[in-house]
Amino acid sequence: MDSLKFHHDPEENYSYSHMANPLDPEEFRRQGHIMIDFIADYYKNIEKYPVRSQVQPGYLRKSLPESAPLHPEAIETILRDVHDHIVPGITHWQSPSYFAYFPSSGSIAGFLGEMLSTGFNVVGFNWMSSPAATELENIVMDWLGDMLQLPKSLLFSGNGGGVLQGTTCEAIVCTMAAARDQILSRIGRDNIGRLVVYGSDQTHSALQKASQIVGINPNNFRAIKTTKSTEFALSPELLRLIICSDVEKGLVPLFLCATVGTTSTTSIDPLGELCDVAKDYGMWVHVDAAYAGSACICPEFRHLIEGVEGANSFSFNAHKWFFTTLDCCCLWVKNPSALIDSLSTNPEFLKNKASDSKKVVDYKDWQIALSRRFRALKLWLVLRSYGVVNLRNFLRSHVNMAEVFEKLVEENKRFEVVVPRKFAMVCFRISPSAISKDPSDDNENVMINEVNCKLLEAINASGNVYMTHAVVGGIFVLRCAIGATLTKGKHIVMAWKEVQGHADAVLRMYQSF
Amino acid sequence: MDSLKFHHDPEENYSYSHMANPLDPEEFRRQGHIMIDFIADYYKNIEKYPVRSQVQPGYLRKSLPESAPLHPEAIETILRDVHDHIVPGITHWQSPSYFAYFPSSGSIAGFLGEMLSTGFNVVGFNWMSSPAATELENIVMDWLGDMLQLPKSLLFSGNGGGVLQGTTCEAIVCTMAAARDQILSRIGRDNIGRLVVYGSDQTHSALQKASQIVGINPNNFRAIKTTKSTEFALSPELLRLIICSDVEKGLVPLFLCATVGTTSTTSIDPLGELCDVAKDYGMWVHVDAAYAGSACICPEFRHLIEGVEGANSFSFNAHKWFFTTLDCCCLWVKNPSALIDSLSTNPEFLKNKASDSKKVVDYKDWQIALSRRFRALKLWLVLRSYGVVNLRNFLRSHVNMAEVFEKLVEENKRFEVVVPRKFAMVCFRISPSAISKDPSDDNENVMINEVNCKLLEAINASGNVYMTHAVVGGIFVLRCAIGATLTKGKHIVMAWKEVQGHADAVLRMYQSF
Repeated sequence: MDSLKFHHDPEENYSYSHMANPLDPEEFRRQGHIMIDFIADYYKNIEKYPVRSQVQPGYLRKSLPESAPLHPEAIETILRDVHDHIVPGITHWQSPSYFAYFPSSGSIAGFLGEMLSTGFNVVGFNWMSSPAATELENIVMDWLGDMLQLPKSLLFSGNGGGVLQGTTCEAIVCTMAAARDQILSRIGRDNIGRLVVYGSDQTHSALQKASQIVGINPNNFRAIKTTKSTEFALSPELLRLIICSDVEKGLVPLFLCATVGTTSTTSIDPLGELCDVAKDYGMWVHVDAAYAGSACICPEFRHLIEGVEGANSFSFNAHKWFFTTLDCCCLWVKNPSALIDSLSTNPEFLKNKASDSKKVVDYKDWQIALSRRFRALKLWLVLRSYGVVNLRNFLRSHVNMAEVFEKLVEENKRFEVVVPRKFAMVCFRISPSAISKDPSDDNENVMINEVNCKLLEAINASGNVYMTHAVVGGIFVLRCAIGATLTKGKHIVMAWKEVQGHADAVLRMYQSF
Repeated sequence: MDSLKFHHDPEENYSYSHMANPLDPEEFRRQGHIMIDFIADYYKNIEKYPVRSQVQPGYLRKSLPESAPLHPEAIETILRDVHDHIVPGITHWQSPSYFAYFPSSGSIAGFLGEMLSTGFNVVGFNWMSSPAATELENIVMDWLGDMLQLPKSLLFSGNGGGVLQGTTCEAIVCTMAAARDQILSRIGRDNIGRLVVYGSDQTHSALQKASQIVGINPNNFRAIKTTKSTEFALSPELLRLIICSDVEKGLVPLFLCATVGTTSTTSIDPLGELCDVAKDYGMWVHVDAAYAGSACICPEFRHLIEGVEGANSFSFNAHKWFFTTLDCCCLWVKNPSALIDSLSTNPEFLKNKASDSKKVVDYKDWQIALSRRFRALKLWLVLRSYGVVNLRNFLRSHVNMAEVFEKLVEENKRFEVVVPRKFAMVCFRISPSAISKDPSDDNENVMINEVNCKLLEAINASGNVYMTHAVVGGIFVLRCAIGATLTKGKHIVMAWKEVQGHADAVLRMYQSF
């Protein structure tokens, strides 16, 4: 055994001996406390930073070296660089004056849950690889399903089941692949080119992307037109007409995505009627409630997902408006074996008694990737740290702030609310009448949009608040999406002042022409 | 304005007022420090837990309530439950005696980077949404590419580029969808059923899954047989033969996945020759170096990816053996526009000046999902905290420990190394001669595998170490994969003692028949 030697003596140049093990518990503790203070201070000072980053493309390459360092650098040095070079390039989604896109609502519990998951750093592809990861996910998904009063058929207790995905797009890829393989197993693989996917022109781009990924012919993707008269909801009658026309052409309806809370205006598709249409054609219906699903834990909003019992799957993003950090998309399906049939592989190296017993869930077959993080921990911590009653009240406080903002807009003659508010997002603009003498003129409409676009640019360039836009029915609207965790009433009042100030300037500029 | 009211007074039942804001900085600080200590103590005590969880299916439902709590619970209560109910269900991937699958090598720097990313909680879908997230990823991927001496054509500086995906499967889905759409745009969408995907019988199941997801006909998936004589590497001659036969049948070669460091035995496919074959047929070649890619930052291992310049894309998982927590798959592509053509959608709500200028990278079009975490931070922290020299030495210390384990196996007549060790994983078993009088008899071979399977079960049931298995060329092998960050030489010696002790018992049992 004399040839047997560990290279762990200080003379050897490769060893841990001259520095702590990269996972040394005491060094972990020391650096971990430093990082907690750094992030706590970041939240404390977050209002000092421009909400939307004001850097120019390429800013960072100028500040960082051209190659990775050869030798270790201290955490203190690295954090100084984070402060000096990274923070200026951050758009502060956690800022109380962040009203862009949809919120990415962090919380202490969500953060701690992510820490714990990162600390264990298990790779929970199947039950065996870390039973707690699978079982806690089963439990939490049933808890959440109950909170949303989802039909039992979507819960484990009713032979359905829930799974945590990263994002809605992944959830749709998985369900659409399952739907595709179900149909193709009946009509033959050669018919993949005949399958058609349906959504509205308000459906999230995730549907189109998923459809591209799973191999649907791009010509067979239908974004059905919506109008202001129905508040941009998908019309079941129109859906039926278009399906009929497709079927007449020899195409095969595959998948419908109905949305509760669209990205542009938080519109709500009529689930019950849409599911009825889909049922007539044997299509898979997925309900995307990415943003608005959260609100449905409040009894007063629950009716908005009535009809979900007719759907095959339902998802919402806990990382949007449910205090759980990115990424965490909650997906429930009625028929998990459809997912498993489509997504399972069974390599020898993963075989184990528990899987063979069929008594356990192996989530690797419910998702795209093999590896998966222990995401259930953060959701569990959010549910337990706040409790159902507070979670409802947090959401209501955002809705309340949006009501206030909406009222401020309505009470000002120069502005208008473009689409009635449903949750915590207000779609508004400077009124056509404040800009144009003849708002019905098409050319004037271009100018009306241009003025509102300029207004948004001015607001965001200030760095004081950040909002984004949508264009619906040809109308450019500003979206004020409330839901950043730190947002309080005073930030709403400030945001409104900011909007008015910039509107004055922009209107003055246009009126001077 | 008298109707304007925030419900923030204590009488209202929905408000934050009766509890701290869920992101209150000082409460964040308090709970954050508690969590750091909890995790530091976990690492300190990690050797007290059975490495592979010993719980039975359904254990957790018995310990947790049937529904989410109505009211808040203290972090101290929750952490007690984590200790009492979650930890027993954890398989401790961070344990120094964890030798299963491949490592999930955590580190302080990786952990801190994940904290920082969670703290900012930005959704970096495009440059605009947080410029630092995109730019740091550009920079870090070029740094890493340089460390691996990747051809310039795969780096941003050479008009290729790198992107962080979650996992290898996602990386393959994206590259395969890109390859598919490139070919179909030439030969017509109707020909999707003619496309063929190639790998070996040692290729990771991610390839098969990706191919299912992107709509390749399951009959057109080729897992080409490998043999012990070539150490389970894919034969370029055999590949060419099979492609020829497919082409004769009117099929169209689409995609080849070549592996450097297969899951079962860390075999290495001959990249250069395989790329030559693929080139003749205009196929996309992806190199999957999920595990072994890390080692190629050491000059002595770099030659193993020679030939990569002929590939279209290359990936390795920093979350496996590169001290970066799950998930973090590094993917480089020669032709980013192929990805973008296949994966981009351009919804109005994401339009912005920076994207219009074409001066920035919008990573949403390089991956499946729209939303994406700021993963570059953890990779940047790992590179800076340890430096290139130490990172190489950490990897070498694992290889050195594997050399020691290999020697221990070789020097014991009852055991054999089944496939020559290449990195830090040893494939071994009890020698046929120690079990059977006629090892060439097929029935005896079943018994030889059975004895080794029993040995593995006995080892893992002990809880002292955890290893997993593979079956290659009909041989059941035990895999001892070294690379958990906390593993030191003494754990290797202990693992070997454990193996020997259980071998004694298992052999005694069989010999008594």
